[in-house]
Amino acid sequence: MPYINVNNDFAGIRGLMAFSPETAEPMGELANALLKETEGLSPAERELIATHVSYLNECFYCHNSHGEIACIYLNGDRELVDNVRKDYQHANISNKLKSLLNIAAKVQQGGKFVTTEDVEAARKQGATDKDIHDTVLIAAAFCMFNRYVDGLGATTPTDLSTYPPRAQQVAERGYGKHIFSGAQPAAQKV
Amino acid sequence: MPYINVNNDFAGIRGLMAFSPETAEPMGELANALLKETEGLSPAERELIATHVSYLNECFYCHNSHGEIACIYLNGDRELVDNVRKDYQHANISNKLKSLLNIAAKVQQGGKFVTTEDVEAARKQGATDKDIHDTVLIAAAFCMFNRYVDGLGATTPTDLSTYPPRAQQVAERGYGKHIFSGAQPAAQKV
Repeated sequence: MPYINVNNDFAGIRGLMAFSPETAEPMGELANALLKETEGLSPAERELIATHVSYLNECFYCHNSHGEIACIYLNGDRELVDNVRKDYQHANISNKLKSLLNIAAKVQQGGKFVTTEDVEAARKQGATDKDIHDTVLIAAAFCMFNRYVDGLGATTPTDLSTYPPRAQQVAERGYGKHIFSGAQPAAQKV
Repeated sequence: MPYINVNNDFAGIRGLMAFSPETAEPMGELANALLKETEGLSPAERELIATHVSYLNECFYCHNSHGEIACIYLNGDRELVDNVRKDYQHANISNKLKSLLNIAAKVQQGGKFVTTEDVEAARKQGATDKDIHDTVLIAAAFCMFNRYVDGLGATTPTDLSTYPPRAQQVAERGYGKHIFSGAQPAAQKV
């Protein structure tokens, strides 16, 4: 049960977004601009950054939701997603993505934790200005999304089988209004 | 100098937004929805919450920018703004706003720091579901904005006299595109 009466039974951020569509719309548009963008980082890499930051923030709802979306983009490689979530330094990903996850983890602690050396290390692995910009903003945005969900005590399904159907919907349709409006099949009210 | 080449000389978040208009637009719309809204909390109260959270995050650019906007709404009472920024418990504000600033400060630490007791305390002071929702999301959003600014090392003017002209513009026109686009008088390129 969330701390406030959201007047709906959607789980996680969806329940909060349905309560406040005025703020939900730009949040959905920001998520689309950051996570569905294909220039530079791939959607899979973007969702992996979101998953790792959400894991660091201990946001169960978000790291499972975005981990599942990353998993779809990675053809079901859930083991890779789990490795990036918990121990990206030893995961089977590029050195470039590792250097960006290092920056993302610094941002999770606070903006001032990022150093010139962190940025230079990413550049040496081929990261562009846009890659670095997007990494910092994805990490920063998930410090918002995670706090929104947990700060209002949003309903968090513990049954992991409820996450893949929602992830499929987001992978196909993006972070649009469908996330928080309209009737949903009962099985997806999670 | 920011960590990336933003190709403009706007200061603070404006320089980053001009570099990335696709993400800047929804961020501006979210700021408008959260900070210019007049239902429930006043714009002054909203900017005070933003200022306090930015101060806790040690984001010099943001706590001075939003402190100046709050100051305009409060008829120039800079002392009150400074008291809320640094020690709201002893500031001359309502007990309701104090109880909401307590929640905002918990959100700054992390979403899970907010307790049922914090929320109940705010309700006892007259806070509605919308007040609590908006407080949590303003605090969460500034955990994003602050990290975006400092995580990319945005240019931060140290001359405090440069903040009031920008604050006046935002107070009058909101957080629209004018913030990061179009020619600005040289004196406002800060």
